[in-house]
Amino acid sequence: MTNRAHKSLGGLSVQSGGQRAVTRALPQEVPVALVFDGTTQAVMMASPSDIADFAHGFALSEGLIDSLEQVEDFEEITHDRGIEARFWLRGESGAALKDRRRAMLGPVGCGLCGIDSLDAALRALPRLPDDAMRLTRAEAAGATDALRDHQPLHDRTRAAHAAGFLVPGQGITVAREDVGRHNALDKLIGALAREGIDPGTGAFVITSRVSVDMVQKTVIAGAPVLIAVSAPTALAVDMAENAGLTLAAFARGDGFDLYAHSHRITDGDTDVA
Amino acid sequence: MTNRAHKSLGGLSVQSGGQRAVTRALPQEVPVALVFDGTTQAVMMASPSDIADFAHGFALSEGLIDSLEQVEDFEEITHDRGIEARFWLRGESGAALKDRRRAMLGPVGCGLCGIDSLDAALRALPRLPDDAMRLTRAEAAGATDALRDHQPLHDRTRAAHAAGFLVPGQGITVAREDVGRHNALDKLIGALAREGIDPGTGAFVITSRVSVDMVQKTVIAGAPVLIAVSAPTALAVDMAENAGLTLAAFARGDGFDLYAHSHRITDGDTDVA
Repeated sequence: MTNRAHKSLGGLSVQSGGQRAVTRALPQEVPVALVFDGTTQAVMMASPSDIADFAHGFALSEGLIDSLEQVEDFEEITHDRGIEARFWLRGESGAALKDRRRAMLGPVGCGLCGIDSLDAALRALPRLPDDAMRLTRAEAAGATDALRDHQPLHDRTRAAHAAGFLVPGQGITVAREDVGRHNALDKLIGALAREGIDPGTGAFVITSRVSVDMVQKTVIAGAPVLIAVSAPTALAVDMAENAGLTLAAFARGDGFDLYAHSHRITDGDTDVA
Repeated sequence: MTNRAHKSLGGLSVQSGGQRAVTRALPQEVPVALVFDGTTQAVMMASPSDIADFAHGFALSEGLIDSLEQVEDFEEITHDRGIEARFWLRGESGAALKDRRRAMLGPVGCGLCGIDSLDAALRALPRLPDDAMRLTRAEAAGATDALRDHQPLHDRTRAAHAAGFLVPGQGITVAREDVGRHNALDKLIGALAREGIDPGTGAFVITSRVSVDMVQKTVIAGAPVLIAVSAPTALAVDMAENAGLTLAAFARGDGFDLYAHSHRITDGDTDVA
């Protein structure tokens, strides 16, 4: 298996005038097994790039770990059929994860039925602190155009999502891509954690719509602003409102819509809080 | 909770010239718990429409049931925080599902580690029969435009996916929408099953890209052709090739690309096989 995030494949381009052979760069997609202390917690389909970022971001987003300090060792192993991301956790964290897994699974037919499961799916998020981070309108409006300069996989395939970290006065400082929008955001979250950058000092910028899970990941990571190219769902807006997250959507260069906590987007200089 | 698939919410539209209050129709998103014989198998975030179609399609796609005959009873219950889709399976099917669940979960720390999990994620698909179903180039090229006439949620929100069933000579006969692309396809699959329509008699048309899971759902349902607006991943092309699925992508009115089993798309009349 190759670790490249795209692959050239032959196809047949059919137009009204006839058909011709073409070669297209298509995004690659591989199964990634996330293995903690020898047990697989999840298998995700992802673009095979920045896998260590993805694995750490996923672990943080899903609450499998609270911080990178809990990771004793990590290895990435490429097999014929996919990639294994192996974590070895420090003693207490590993034991806690096993307890959690036991509690989550319960015995077969445990009676964790619909209502309990619905409550668990919409678990309360922490409230973001009302920090001093501010963006200007121009920065927020230009965020998705700025992200476009960090999307080499999308440039080649026109079919990949991206997530970027926008810092006031500095533009997009970190960006990651994946064929899946959730994975791109998890890769960004993992990259920031591994580089020791506090997500509270900037905004997350994403190329997709804003569903509930994108808000959950953003708030759990601690970023106070989320800017998206496409629409939010109504429930994502409610959740952003409750969590203290500034939510901008339909961001397309010339402007954007604000749905929650608009005070972090200012008229003028970013220094004016 | 409302069962409507969209909700009007107030926002602030920010443009370079200033800002103004706006009201937007945003897609709604709710947790749906899929409960079999009293045990939750999954909680999915979905648009709250056609939930019975969604639940049955999900159950078929995920192999929780093989046919609707295994369902003894079904009820849909709307709670404050989401929707419960409750299945009661006939004796043997219910017992088989419990065994399957026991096998899937295994004991905690069971050692189902990375390599086994990767194999399971890419399990072999059945091979589609080389049936007589054919589409003309014009039908395939016009499929996504035809689907546009069946997307009321997208018309209101500009942020919903759709999946449609295209029958040679008849156009799109069934379509379903959802804020998620997987859910839209599962709703279509469930709707066809509940209406007693054989997916083998037409093509699935989707508004999204083609990842591996869209190919898996299509093949398991038994549809011989998949037509998508956006790109396939390289692995999705491999999988379509191996499963005997005709895969058309980048379908945008004026043409499309063919990546596998192009023989089902013909030059002329659909009657000519």
